[in-house]
Amino acid sequence: MGIVVQKFGGTSVADVEKIRNVANRVVKTVAQGNSVVVVLSAMAGVTDSLIKLAHQASKNPDGRELDSLLSTGEQTTVTLMAMMLNDMGYKACSLLGFQAEIFTNSAATKARIISIGADKILKLLRDGHIVVVAGFQGIDAGGNITTLGRGGSDTSAVAVAAAINADVCEIYTDVDGVYTTDPSICDKARKLGKISYDEMMEMASLGAKVLQIRSVEFAKKYNVPVHVRSSFSDEEGTMVLSENTGMEELVISGVTCSKGEARITFKKVPDTPGVASRIFKPIADARILVDMIIQNTRAGGQTDLTFTVSKNDYEKALAISRETGKEIGAQEVNGADNLAKVSIIGVGMKNHSGVASTMFSALAAEGINILMISTSEIRISCIVEEKYAELAVRVLHSAFGLDKDK
Amino acid sequence: MGIVVQKFGGTSVADVEKIRNVANRVVKTVAQGNSVVVVLSAMAGVTDSLIKLAHQASKNPDGRELDSLLSTGEQTTVTLMAMMLNDMGYKACSLLGFQAEIFTNSAATKARIISIGADKILKLLRDGHIVVVAGFQGIDAGGNITTLGRGGSDTSAVAVAAAINADVCEIYTDVDGVYTTDPSICDKARKLGKISYDEMMEMASLGAKVLQIRSVEFAKKYNVPVHVRSSFSDEEGTMVLSENTGMEELVISGVTCSKGEARITFKKVPDTPGVASRIFKPIADARILVDMIIQNTRAGGQTDLTFTVSKNDYEKALAISRETGKEIGAQEVNGADNLAKVSIIGVGMKNHSGVASTMFSALAAEGINILMISTSEIRISCIVEEKYAELAVRVLHSAFGLDKDK
Repeated sequence: MGIVVQKFGGTSVADVEKIRNVANRVVKTVAQGNSVVVVLSAMAGVTDSLIKLAHQASKNPDGRELDSLLSTGEQTTVTLMAMMLNDMGYKACSLLGFQAEIFTNSAATKARIISIGADKILKLLRDGHIVVVAGFQGIDAGGNITTLGRGGSDTSAVAVAAAINADVCEIYTDVDGVYTTDPSICDKARKLGKISYDEMMEMASLGAKVLQIRSVEFAKKYNVPVHVRSSFSDEEGTMVLSENTGMEELVISGVTCSKGEARITFKKVPDTPGVASRIFKPIADARILVDMIIQNTRAGGQTDLTFTVSKNDYEKALAISRETGKEIGAQEVNGADNLAKVSIIGVGMKNHSGVASTMFSALAAEGINILMISTSEIRISCIVEEKYAELAVRVLHSAFGLDKDK
Repeated sequence: MGIVVQKFGGTSVADVEKIRNVANRVVKTVAQGNSVVVVLSAMAGVTDSLIKLAHQASKNPDGRELDSLLSTGEQTTVTLMAMMLNDMGYKACSLLGFQAEIFTNSAATKARIISIGADKILKLLRDGHIVVVAGFQGIDAGGNITTLGRGGSDTSAVAVAAAINADVCEIYTDVDGVYTTDPSICDKARKLGKISYDEMMEMASLGAKVLQIRSVEFAKKYNVPVHVRSSFSDEEGTMVLSENTGMEELVISGVTCSKGEARITFKKVPDTPGVASRIFKPIADARILVDMIIQNTRAGGQTDLTFTVSKNDYEKALAISRETGKEIGAQEVNGADNLAKVSIIGVGMKNHSGVASTMFSALAAEGINILMISTSEIRISCIVEEKYAELAVRVLHSAFGLDKDK
């Protein structure tokens, strides 16, 4: 018994029959005595179709107009859902972004939520309504419709949950929770019962595509319990919570892997102030995103500097770097584009020593050479040759005791 | 040079290329030094598809939700139009009903406009924008999206024109103006240069499907000059104006004809108070619309009473009336469903005698028997046998000098 926010993505509302399935699930939650706010995405494929239509109308569609056009996608699903719920004998009411008072800044196509007027939603809930809120959309101070960018409906749901102080925000997806690693790589991957916001953010940014990273930031900021679960079953999924709410006693919560990494190395660069800036300015000017940067000091006033970029940017970045290398007097600029980044993530490592060495030993035991290392407070990432990626994931999964009981 | 409101219907914006044609026409009007507000309908067929979708979701779709769903149709066309105009180098901005502050009552699917906030539109025009307003939709005091009913975009356009005191409201249709009669019946039909609001309303309600009757009422109330013209040519169409603004010197402006009429006659009914009420109450209870009613007094405290209904309601109305006939002691109840109503319309008849007798003589000369007659201040309607409908139109068109010069 409480207030539950339930968010369903595009594949869950892809047609009228699927929307009816969602309606049945919503009604079940209501029958359990809960007040329910439903947040919906557009039907799968609709947003892409609308973008295509916009590009038929204009080479470079105006952002404000595009947002107003795209918002029709969620407008369609929420009104259909509310009609169905009415038809099933429930009081239900759809709210578009402006009606739900989801105020954002004015950054068209990638707006950020500033505030949500909770009073309207809460009043409707008190009056016995199921409130069906359009995800992905908001309104700015000038009354213009805005959208929150890809996956923005997750953020809408969490933000609404925060505003009305919901007991839980349920995110329904096509997977049944957050796993210790990708089950398609490691068949011993285990569904996590709980995970912390910080861990989830590291997981999300490293390739586990369960939750939009911005929605997790929002959930952390407002301490909204998020339940990631499957729209196809009633099984419990994974709770995303703050660290101190009884996490499992795991040192490591997950192992992630992203392929398609490339490195570029400057050898024997004069170790003088400003050299890094001269290397990275032209890279940034070419709008190439740099991930890891590592610099070692050599003897004799020289240094080696290596950084990683996405494989897609490799050729371009290498050409730029070779130019830079000549200018700054590097002995050599070389690179490789057959790399992968394997990471272990866990808030537990803050309080456990030896995590890094366990990781390095486990990889070494399988003959996997570590090319680069970077760390955050709750993450250690190693660059390895791409061909070892899957093996590295399985080895680390095992080494940190994540394998499920057979 | 002035403020021009241009309204385009669904067939004019049926796809991206047609919207581009409209954009080109709008830009031409801007190039002539005008400030332009464009009012658009949804793409042809879209509103019907959305209604179908709603009926897949619900047996009896909730009106509020249906309105919010239907409003996506115009949302799509106005945003695409604004994108195109931007792309062509013009400042343009779409406004949905709520953004244009088109406030209506709360009668879902058939809302009435209460007020329009002109300031926002005028400010955008002053800033050099082309303003593209979504037709058909508004918002009520509770922030719910409403729609104005079929053909509501005409009313939106006239209401916006009234609010911003536009110099003219141009309604673009697939015909090039208002004709003296249906050109498919009478090849001598002539396009009118001007017509009064009252005449236009009589024409609209009698089957000339050029303008929604409510939009004409609105235009009359706020004295908005309406220019009905073709979206496929640059020719002048028909101006709809108030009577005293230099109308043409015509006694009669048009001849209209509606087939599919049926009559029911009560013969020798006791002529006592309350008898009409006993006849029409059960008809009204069955939701059958009655058009003309005629009662003749007979000798001996008896009367004959005849009324007309649509052919579609004939069988039902006759069955009900036969029951009533027994109850009230009518000698006979009979009927016919092969009738047509032919009308002549003209503000000139207020100041000309002999109009009715000219009409009756012209019909008599061709052997057309008049079965019923009804009149208003600017209209005379005769019920004739359906087979004479076209002939009657041509005869009257000629008799009142409406035939075009050959």
